[in-house]
Amino acid sequence: MENKQYGVIGLGKMGSNLALQAVEKGYEIVGYDMYPPPGLSETNLVLAADLEDLVNKLQTPRKIFLYIPAGVAVDTVIGQLSPLLTGGDIIIDGGNSYWGDSIRRARQLKDDKGIHLIDCGTSGGVSGARNGACFMVGGDKDAVTSIEGLLRDLAVPNGYSYTGNSGSGHFVKLVHNGIEFGMLQAIGEGMDLLANYREELDISDILLTWNNGSVIRSWLIELMKKLYDEKQGFNVPKYVEDTGEVNWLVTDAMHMEVPIPVIAQSVMQLIASRDDKNVAPKAVAMMRNGFGGHPFGPDDHIRYERHFGKVGGYEQPAQE
Amino acid sequence: MENKQYGVIGLGKMGSNLALQAVEKGYEIVGYDMYPPPGLSETNLVLAADLEDLVNKLQTPRKIFLYIPAGVAVDTVIGQLSPLLTGGDIIIDGGNSYWGDSIRRARQLKDDKGIHLIDCGTSGGVSGARNGACFMVGGDKDAVTSIEGLLRDLAVPNGYSYTGNSGSGHFVKLVHNGIEFGMLQAIGEGMDLLANYREELDISDILLTWNNGSVIRSWLIELMKKLYDEKQGFNVPKYVEDTGEVNWLVTDAMHMEVPIPVIAQSVMQLIASRDDKNVAPKAVAMMRNGFGGHPFGPDDHIRYERHFGKVGGYEQPAQE
Repeated sequence: MENKQYGVIGLGKMGSNLALQAVEKGYEIVGYDMYPPPGLSETNLVLAADLEDLVNKLQTPRKIFLYIPAGVAVDTVIGQLSPLLTGGDIIIDGGNSYWGDSIRRARQLKDDKGIHLIDCGTSGGVSGARNGACFMVGGDKDAVTSIEGLLRDLAVPNGYSYTGNSGSGHFVKLVHNGIEFGMLQAIGEGMDLLANYREELDISDILLTWNNGSVIRSWLIELMKKLYDEKQGFNVPKYVEDTGEVNWLVTDAMHMEVPIPVIAQSVMQLIASRDDKNVAPKAVAMMRNGFGGHPFGPDDHIRYERHFGKVGGYEQPAQE
Repeated sequence: MENKQYGVIGLGKMGSNLALQAVEKGYEIVGYDMYPPPGLSETNLVLAADLEDLVNKLQTPRKIFLYIPAGVAVDTVIGQLSPLLTGGDIIIDGGNSYWGDSIRRARQLKDDKGIHLIDCGTSGGVSGARNGACFMVGGDKDAVTSIEGLLRDLAVPNGYSYTGNSGSGHFVKLVHNGIEFGMLQAIGEGMDLLANYREELDISDILLTWNNGSVIRSWLIELMKKLYDEKQGFNVPKYVEDTGEVNWLVTDAMHMEVPIPVIAQSVMQLIASRDDKNVAPKAVAMMRNGFGGHPFGPDDHIRYERHFGKVGGYEQPAQE
């Protein structure tokens, strides 16, 4: 019978919610986090004191999820964890690690100690982690098969794919995130157009309608409406936080010689949104001042007259 | 009581399916098309012999939908139709007319004859027209109110918005189409990345998974899977047909000074897909040949070695 005991290292937004969902579905979860969020101790989750405690609490073959930030943190935790494990144990990296890193780590863990590393791209956000997620999973087929029961239980129906060898799960998740960025930016630009129409539009109502029967109906349109209503408009800073992984996809696309202009442009727009020190527009303004005496800084009156000429002009040019 | 009789001019994919849906829902539809599609005469749709016959078959105030291609066709049909109509009659333009044209036409019809023109952006594609569409509707509030019963009956629940004065319905639909183009291109680029991964991926299965629980779940991902399965891969010409309206949105964005790089790029990619006479890459190749002796035409071996160096090199550079 399948051993229903799993470890989860990293009890942040994704790790803790997946752990709670698993506990509800009859799994025994041993969790560890350097700073476990308050409240978790009152659940049926077993909290380990440290990595050694976590490892000792799990039967072999151990199955341990990582839900920690991509990059150095993953190498560090794997470096601390792997000496405590034995051959046949399985580490499942549920974060957004670079797929090239996952290939490297899987090979090294297997060669050194016979430990399996599964790359498990996880989508669906925080609510998905709590109620039904989406998994794209790469790694040795036998190892993946041994945890498929849990993955199917934590995913919405049909929300699980075995994608192939090590790396493929994180690659497929990365492509998903690239598509997500393009969709986000396209919707964002559409919002800008609606907000700048000559009349005030009921954007909340339009988003509701778009999500019912239109071609662009999607979870992102649903979220756009939810947040627009909650914030009573676009009342948040003009700054897009992200964790940087789609930058890697742009690099990958260059290696693969695959043109992805919209995904790349989406990343650049996002980077520009948070760069207070961005000099490109300053440099452009400086050269324009140099050759044409164009002014620095906004000057709405001049700009208005230059572009719209006749004040009161109403229609934009009609098409044939 | 609401007069449940409507005219529909243009019985193509959208017009005929909306008409059939309306007939099923208890409306009396009088349809006209220069070349009505075969089969319609066997339905409960009344077919008119010409525009005069259509107008004579309708009680006043008449309510007549146009589902014809945007541009000259709309001006031509309105030019032929309006002399046959009387004050208070309503024309509903359900196509993708430019919203500036709709403002101009609405004003002129009202001033000349007291006829209302409603701009009714229609989304949801052919299946939406048949089973439940999505409407974004601009125009005089009273005129729109008088046809709201039908619009709500033909839309999916919550798939109807009154957006404001003349032009706003077609503007909101145009922005919808711009977002759609950005989403299409982002998904298209993602497909290119999956298809070029080092291993063969089960793209159909990945699309199924993405549509269940992921952040990018959407009707477009669902359609991508459906067509991928039907065509057994990406076995269609590398040519994107479109009706040109998102080009207008790029022009609008320039007038409005709203940056829409991803939507604009999506339009350009689409135009490039069908331009056999595209000279930009030829010009680039000519200049590169001029300064560096770079060869014309594909030469896979040279390209491969230049980019990948060591044959058999396996991993792409890992991230920190």
